[in-house]
Formats: sequence, C-alpha cells, structure tokens
Amino acid sequence: MPTFALGPNQYGKAETRIVRVTRGPGGDEITDLNVSVSLRGDLAASHLTGDNAAVLPTDTQKNTVYAFAREHGIDGIEAFATRLARHFVESQPSIHGARVAVEQYPWQPVDGRHSFRRDGGEIRTATVHHDDAGTQVVSGVRDLVLLKTTDSEFHGFVQDRYTTLPETRDRILATSVNATWRHAGPAGDAYGTARAALIEAFADTHSLALQQTLYAMGERVLAACPGVVEVKLSLPNRHHFLVDLTPFGLDNPNEVYYAADRPYGLIEGSVRRDDDVAEEVAWSF
Amino acid sequence: MPTFALGPNQYGKAETRIVRVTRGPGGDEITDLNVSVSLRGDLAASHLTGDNAAVLPTDTQKNTVYAFAREHGIDGIEAFATRLARHFVESQPSIHGARVAVEQYPWQPVDGRHSFRRDGGEIRTATVHHDDAGTQVVSGVRDLVLLKTTDSEFHGFVQDRYTTLPETRDRILATSVNATWRHAGPAGDAYGTARAALIEAFADTHSLALQQTLYAMGERVLAACPGVVEVKLSLPNRHHFLVDLTPFGLDNPNEVYYAADRPYGLIEGSVRRDDDVAEEVAWSF
Amino acid sequence: MPTFALGPNQYGKAETRIVRVTRGPGGDEITDLNVSVSLRGDLAASHLTGDNAAVLPTDTQKNTVYAFAREHGIDGIEAFATRLARHFVESQPSIHGARVAVEQYPWQPVDGRHSFRRDGGEIRTATVHHDDAGTQVVSGVRDLVLLKTTDSEFHGFVQDRYTTLPETRDRILATSVNATWRHAGPAGDAYGTARAALIEAFADTHSLALQQTLYAMGERVLAACPGVVEVKLSLPNRHHFLVDLTPFGLDNPNEVYYAADRPYGLIEGSVRRDDDVAEEVAWSF
Amino acid sequence: MPTFALGPNQYGKAETRIVRVTRGPGGDEITDLNVSVSLRGDLAASHLTGDNAAVLPTDTQKNTVYAFAREHGIDGIEAFATRLARHFVESQPSIHGARVAVEQYPWQPVDGRHSFRRDGGEIRTATVHHDDAGTQVVSGVRDLVLLKTTDSEFHGFVQDRYTTLPETRDRILATSVNATWRHAGPAGDAYGTARAALIEAFADTHSLALQQTLYAMGERVLAACPGVVEVKLSLPNRHHFLVDLTPFGLDNPNEVYYAADRPYGLIEGSVRRDDDVAEEVAWSF
Repeated sequence: MPTFALGPNQYGKAETRIVRVTRGPGGDEITDLNVSVSLRGDLAASHLTGDNAAVLPTDTQKNTVYAFAREHGIDGIEAFATRLARHFVESQPSIHGARVAVEQYPWQPVDGRHSFRRDGGEIRTATVHHDDAGTQVVSGVRDLVLLKTTDSEFHGFVQDRYTTLPETRDRILATSVNATWRHAGPAGDAYGTARAALIEAFADTHSLALQQTLYAMGERVLAACPGVVEVKLSLPNRHHFLVDLTPFGLDNPNEVYYAADRPYGLIEGSVRRDDDVAEEVAWSF
Repeated sequence: MPTFALGPNQYGKAETRIVRVTRGPGGDEITDLNVSVSLRGDLAASHLTGDNAAVLPTDTQKNTVYAFAREHGIDGIEAFATRLARHFVESQPSIHGARVAVEQYPWQPVDGRHSFRRDGGEIRTATVHHDDAGTQVVSGVRDLVLLKTTDSEFHGFVQDRYTTLPETRDRILATSVNATWRHAGPAGDAYGTARAALIEAFADTHSLALQQTLYAMGERVLAACPGVVEVKLSLPNRHHFLVDLTPFGLDNPNEVYYAADRPYGLIEGSVRRDDDVAEEVAWSF
Repeated sequence: MPTFALGPNQYGKAETRIVRVTRGPGGDEITDLNVSVSLRGDLAASHLTGDNAAVLPTDTQKNTVYAFAREHGIDGIEAFATRLARHFVESQPSIHGARVAVEQYPWQPVDGRHSFRRDGGEIRTATVHHDDAGTQVVSGVRDLVLLKTTDSEFHGFVQDRYTTLPETRDRILATSVNATWRHAGPAGDAYGTARAALIEAFADTHSLALQQTLYAMGERVLAACPGVVEVKLSLPNRHHFLVDLTPFGLDNPNEVYYAADRPYGLIEGSVRRDDDVAEEVAWSF
Repeated sequence: MPTFALGPNQYGKAETRIVRVTRGPGGDEITDLNVSVSLRGDLAASHLTGDNAAVLPTDTQKNTVYAFAREHGIDGIEAFATRLARHFVESQPSIHGARVAVEQYPWQPVDGRHSFRRDGGEIRTATVHHDDAGTQVVSGVRDLVLLKTTDSEFHGFVQDRYTTLPETRDRILATSVNATWRHAGPAGDAYGTARAALIEAFADTHSLALQQTLYAMGERVLAACPGVVEVKLSLPNRHHFLVDLTPFGLDNPNEVYYAADRPYGLIEGSVRRDDDVAEEVAWSF
C-alpha cells in the first residue's frame, strides 16, 4: 500500500480589513489596510490527526492585527508587517516562519480636518517574510494604470507561419503596473521615490517593446533607491487598436481607438543589482 | 387558448470601449469612454416573427460611436451622447427613442506631453434620452468614496423587539457616492461644480443620519448648479465598527476600526427644485 | 432664494447573508440567501433635520431577517420575503411600503447526509413589494448562461452608412439569462416550471433574431405558468465570432470561435398576458 | 556608477478565449477555454535595447492557439497545452521554455443536439511547462465550493494573550477548493477521478481542523490516481457564524448562520507520494 507525506504547508488569516484613525488638532489621519497572515511550523499533527496543540488560531491572528494597531500604532506598512511577522515567530514555539502581506488604500484629505476621499485605483503593498534566516521586506504598488499616446513602436520581431501582426512605428502603449521591490534591509522611506521612478521611466522611455519599458522602469527604481536590490514587474499590455474607419469614408490619423479587454500581452521580468547575490525567499504557494 | 402581447422592449450595443486622442503641440489629451446605446421603436416584427427589417444592428451602433468620435469629436460626454441619441432617432424611421449612457474614466497628465495616469476610482457618467417628447440629459458620478472620522451621530431611532443597535454620538461615516443630476436643458459645464458640491456637503454636514447627509448633498448641488432640477443619490453606508480590544487589556478611543463588507445600509433619495414639475423619463429596464 | 423638496426616497439593509440548516434523520437541507430590504414612509424628518424618530435602523432590519428565519423558517424565498415585507409595514406606523429582494444560491447534496456542493452559476431571485395597495411578488433567475451552436440566423436588417455587419444564416447564439416573472397572486411552486420553460424555448426556437428568442422564452413561461402575468427578460448577446484562419492556410467550417467580452448586444423586453391590466410597481431607484 | 542586470523574465499572450464546436449527427460538443501562454528564452536584447529579433509576438501566440484548435483539435486540455508548449520551444530557436495554462468552463447538454447550459461555478485547469528538462503536466480544479453542516470540530489549539475564540465541537465547515495535481507523465484520464476523490474526502472526513480535511483530500487523490505524484490545495475557510438570537428571546440550535466575507482563514498545503523525489518546476512569477 502506498504511503504519502505532507509537503510544504502554511495557514493564516487572510484579508483582515483594518482602519486606524490618528486624531490630532491639525486634522486627522487615516490608515486603511488589508492584512493577510501566513504561518509555517510544526503543523504536521494538525494535518495528520487533527491535533491542534501547535495551531495558533487564525482568529487569534486577526485579533493580534487589531491589538497591535492600538498598542504600537502603524508606522508604515513595512514596519507594521515586520512587527507582526516577528511576533508570531518569537511568541509561538511551534511557528518557525511568518509572512505578512499588507495592502494599503490611499485617501486624500478633503478639508484638512476630518473628511477624506478615496484616491482610487492604485494600491500600495508590502510583504514581509520572517524566519530563522532573517527578515525580508518587499514593497510594491499595483493597479497603477499608465498610458502613452505615442513614443511606442513594435517591429523587427520573429515571423512564422502564424504571424499576421503588422509592424508599427507608432502605437498607444498602456499597462497596469504591478511592481514589487525587495529591500536589502528595512524599507525606509522609499515608496514615493520608487513609485515616481516607475512613472517617470514609463513616460521617458521611447519604447521599442514593452520589455524595454519594463527594464527601464526596474533600472530607474534601482538607481533612485539605494536600498532596493531587486525589482519585479508584471505588465499587462492593454491593447488599444486603431479603429478602421475607411468603410465610413473616414481616415483615422491615430485618433480613435478601441480599448480591448482580452486577450492581452503579459510581460514579466525582474531587474537586479549586479552585486545582488542573496536569493529571494520563494514563499508563495 | 391564451394569447400574449409584447410589452416594453429595447435593444442596443452595450459597453463600446472607445479612447480618443487629441494631439496638439502643447501636449495630448485623451478621452476614455464606455458607451452603451439602447433603442426603442417598431420592433414587434423582430420579436414575433424574426423579421428584422426595422432593426438597426447593434454592430452598426458600435460603428456609429467610433465614426462620430472622428467626424464630430467628443466635446463633453453629454454632448456626445446627445448627438448619438438624436442621430439614431432622426436617421431611422423605425426608431422612436434612444438612450445613450456614457461612462468616462479620468486620467491625469504625467509629463504634459504624451503620458497619463488613470485617476482611479470615481467614474463620470452621462445618460441622454431622446424621443418625440424631447431630450433629457442626466449627469452623474459613481464610486466616489468618502469618509469622515467624526461629526456623525445616530440616535433617537425606533426601537422594537429586534433592535440591539446602541445609540452613538460619534462614529465613522463612509459611503461610495452614486449620484445623478438631471438638467433642465443641455448639461453645460456643471460637472466640476456638482462634484465639488457633493464632497463639500458631505464634509460640512454634521450628520445625525446618513439621510440628512444625503439631503444636504442634493441640496448643495441644486444650489450650486442653476440648470440642475433634480439630484438622485444612492449611498451605501459602509460600516466601520470600533473593535472591542478590552479582552486584550486595551482601550480603543475611536482609533481602531473594522471595515465591514456586508451587510451594509443603503440610503437612497432625491432632492428637487420646488418648481420642478417635469417628470423624469423612467426608462430603465 | 430657491427652495428645494425631498423627492422619492427609501432606505434599508442590503445583502444580509443568511444560511439556514434544516437538520433531519434523512439528511440535512440548507437554504443560502442574500436578503436586501428597502423601506419607504414618513422619512422626511430624518432627511431634513436628522430626527430619526420614524427610522427603524437598518441594523434592526438585519436582526429581523435572522430572527424570522428561526421563528418562521424559510418556506420558499417568495413567502419569506412576503412575511418580512408585511412585518415592516404592519409593525411600524412610520413605514408605508417595503421591498424585500432575495437571492438564493443553489446547492447539491453530495452524500445525502451533511455535505453539499455549490451548484454554481445561476441564482434564483424573488422580489416582494408590499404597501397599502397590496402585495406584489416577482420571481426570477439570473446568470443562467445558455448557448446554441446553430439554429441561429441574423439577416434582413437595416443597412445605413455605418453598417458593415455581413448577414449570416448560421451563427452561435449565446446569452446569460436575466429573467423575472410577476405573479398574479402568491408565487406558488412555479420556479422549476418557469426555469425549464426558459431553457426549452431557447433550445427549441430556430432564431432569426435574439429578439425572437426573447419573445419565445417569455411566451413559454406564460403558457407554462398560469399564475404568471408578465415576464421580463434582459439578454446580453454574448458574441462568438468565427476566427479567420485563412492566413494560416486553414478553413474554419463553423468550428473555432473567439468568445468576445465587450461590446455586446443587449436585448431587453417583456411579454404579458393580454388580459394583464395591472401596472407593475416601478420601485427601483 | 552602479550597474544592473536582467533577472528572470517571461512574456506571452494571456486569456485567449476560444470555443471549439465539434459537430456530429448525434449532437454537438463544445470546448470552452481560456488559454494563457508564457515564453522564456533569449530575451535580453528586447529588454536592453528594444531589439525584437528573438521575440515571437504575443499576437502570433494567440493565432497559434486558434490554428492548433483547427489543425489538431482539442483532445483534452492537458494534451492541447502540451502540444502548444512544445511547438513554441521546438519551432523557435530563441525560445527555451514555455508554460501554457488553460482554464476550461464546463457546459451541460440541454437537448442532446445543439443547446447547452453553462455548468457554472467550478473551473477545470491544466498547466504545462516544457523546456530542455522535459514536460511537466499539472491538472486542477478551482472554485469548487463545498460545505458540510456538521462533522466539524475545532479545539485544543494554542491560547495566547490575543485568543478569544471559543472551542467548538460542532460547526459548519465550508471552503472553495483550489486544487492542483502533478502527474508523473501525461495526464491521462484522471480528472473525474481526482475531482470525485476531493469531494468524497471532504464529505467523509470527520474534521478536527481544516488542515486535517486538506490532508485527507490530497491523500485521497493520490490513492485514487496512480499517475499523480503531488497534490496542492489552497482552501479558504469560509466562516459561517451562528447568529446570537437570545436578544430576541430565541434559541439557535445550529440552525441560523451568518455567512461572512472577510477576513477568512486560508489553509494551504501539499501531499506527496513518499517516493516523489522530482522537484516541481517553480515557474510562477
């Protein structure tokens, strides 16, 4: 009879939605987060026999997120995630590794006092892994949608039996930036700098391929943020096709486009410092 | 044997995604729209026998949206929708009424030249009805998410056997504004004014009920926009509950909240000018 | 100075997610619902001054949904919604009308005992209005996705300057059925019959237009369900386009299709009994 | 001046939506797929200088998906993905690895002839990696939602300062199964067997922890499918909380539950054959 073995595993509470208000005479501040915790450790018994003596309930993890926001405040999502990840590993003998992933939703003050408007669209992210080997901090942004109306070409590509795409010297280039950047140490205050670098590189690069734009964006973040050692980018190519108006007796001098949903190109890649020898913890599931 | 009759009906092309670029020496502009057309008219034969002699195909409607963007430009979504609605009714003997609904996605210039960032979240809307009785123009905004950290109370309400909600003198008030406003004539340039009025009224109103805030928001739009005769608001009450931290030996002085998903309150209402006697065309389906 | 007036308004608790288990020796049953309540009545004071003396809190409405599931059980979603709607109007002097909308998610038994599998996709619905004028019960289904591989044509339509669509004698026809049907009295046990009628009429009708299929579907429900007086259908035309494979030296004998997302046709209409004189309460917002 | 290096990268066409009809005298069959391709290889020049001489356009990849469906048919999603993955690597000197991920949407025949109903909810998946090291085939299912009304306990867990969860001897257990299973060789015909094993193990296991149920589900797939070497499961714990009805003078004998959205537990793990020494290709990004 065959026997089987438990492989890698983790568990935790996902998507704890917490809003913290800092009240002050000069106006309030709000921090709006979505926190997901994953823990690893001595969890075989729970899987094999249902013995939960080593299991810190996910409900407790949720409570800890709320309590820490009160006890320690939220001094940046990287620091908050790091504090939580270390807590779970250091306080629980059965837990040997923790990953805490945080999404932050931005808000704009409306009146400088108590009212705010969600600054929709893009989301700031941080993911912290902590275990015996140390603490790894990755920051990021997603759903940052960028478009340029020109300065984008695509030609000189492979042609095979299935190729029908014409070469182009001028097209719309649009993407929804999903980027993460790994820090050598703690995150510090790099978010605004990294985000600006992404946007500026997208705008400045005369693009011969979305791959080239991707590399330029990663390179720009590394150049602007000395503490960042690696940048990963996942860039959907949100195709905008010029509409053929000739059946209606009209020309279309790069003016009217159809924004397609699916399919879409997906360009993914990373850019690293040459001296980056440390391997990333591959802890996704 | 019973006989049956065709009741109200309409048809059209929904969600034509069009992006128009206006190129200029001082930088480009982009207009990013989602256009949905519905037509009414002599459509009984198509329903009863499949005779399509009176049917303008939805594919043609899509083509018309693209062609009009080139032939006439897009001088505001209300004007664009009006031009389309009139075209369908005036050019097709079998079509007696048209509704054109437009969503506009806002973009921010990045470099003053060719690059833009989606200004996510809120969406600008316009819906135009046109038929023999005339043209009705309704503008709006949706997914405009607002929150105030205080200045919101809720008490003095009905108590019955099923009431457990405690009265509160201080709570977070948050909503996602879904508003439409109907114009006496053409829309003119009221969008920015109306949107600002909604935000300011939300911020300024010391709220004893979300209903009171709703009325104040509608009233403010009417006061600020002379050409607007009616404002409709649909405001979900996005509950933020104070987390009970006492099990952990912590107080919670209005600082740490849980942002709930469902269920949510939903407050809906309209505010009109006293002299508004015209009835709205109820043309939703 | 202009004065303004409160127009139509309503409020309530939306999307209360309730699951009720009926335990029995022959196996359990589950009822999985999403309940949304809207109330109308003497609500001007709440809007104008924040006086909530006439307001039954939405939190209480949620509690009532839960309590009624225990006190009265859930003997069909139409009956459950009717009981709730009448309760709010009859127990609250300030409330004159109630609308209760219910979505039901279907589950299939797995083992005849305690385990179930979500029968994904389509959702059963019921909406009940109750006020002085009486009780109106509307049942429905949505997200019922149907496709036929042939027996669908589209030709003989209007041609204008913007028409490029070729006529077709054979195409895929696909839609996601969103249907509601209004009962003369209580709903009775018509759901299965009505749903089967919709599917059978879609399959049986050799379609010359989606409008024709729509009418056939409505007619079939009326013929099969004597207590139903009106059927409303909203049918997106989920386009499946034959892929042009000639660039690759291949034919495509109605075999390989591209399933498009947007834009899509949207065909909407109602079919009524000839003797249906009662007007529907138009209580959407 | 620092220098940077291109790290791991890939590109491809995502979400090509293809529907293939097989027409026959005994009724038609439809295959409804969403195909995503990712390629790796000599892509540095495209990133660094925009030289696309090694780039097979994503548009060509889309065309290839359509053409292969006509040239070779779709004899199972694993075989279809394998054929595509091998084609890209074998036909393109610059491409050294390919991943093809397929989602399949199930349909039920309605009339045995031409009409079908989407069997909503769960989705069948296959992901194939192909490179010099060989071909790896992973099958799966996602959005398979299961619930049991009893036979689930949770107690004996760690208690710390932040624990408030009471132990329970009887609760609802519900999850949305996201499972993948890796084959030693080609996939063969294991899908139905694996899916049934997942459902039966969920139903049969008296659960002391969702972890225990997870392990039982993985073990059952391995026992039922000799060609499967590893099963991965990601199981959200869709909490159903008993509603406290005591404020209304009612008991609640495990009858009325609130189905919560967020947060939720997330239990993830893999089960392997003891003799499974081959490492999985970690090719996600």
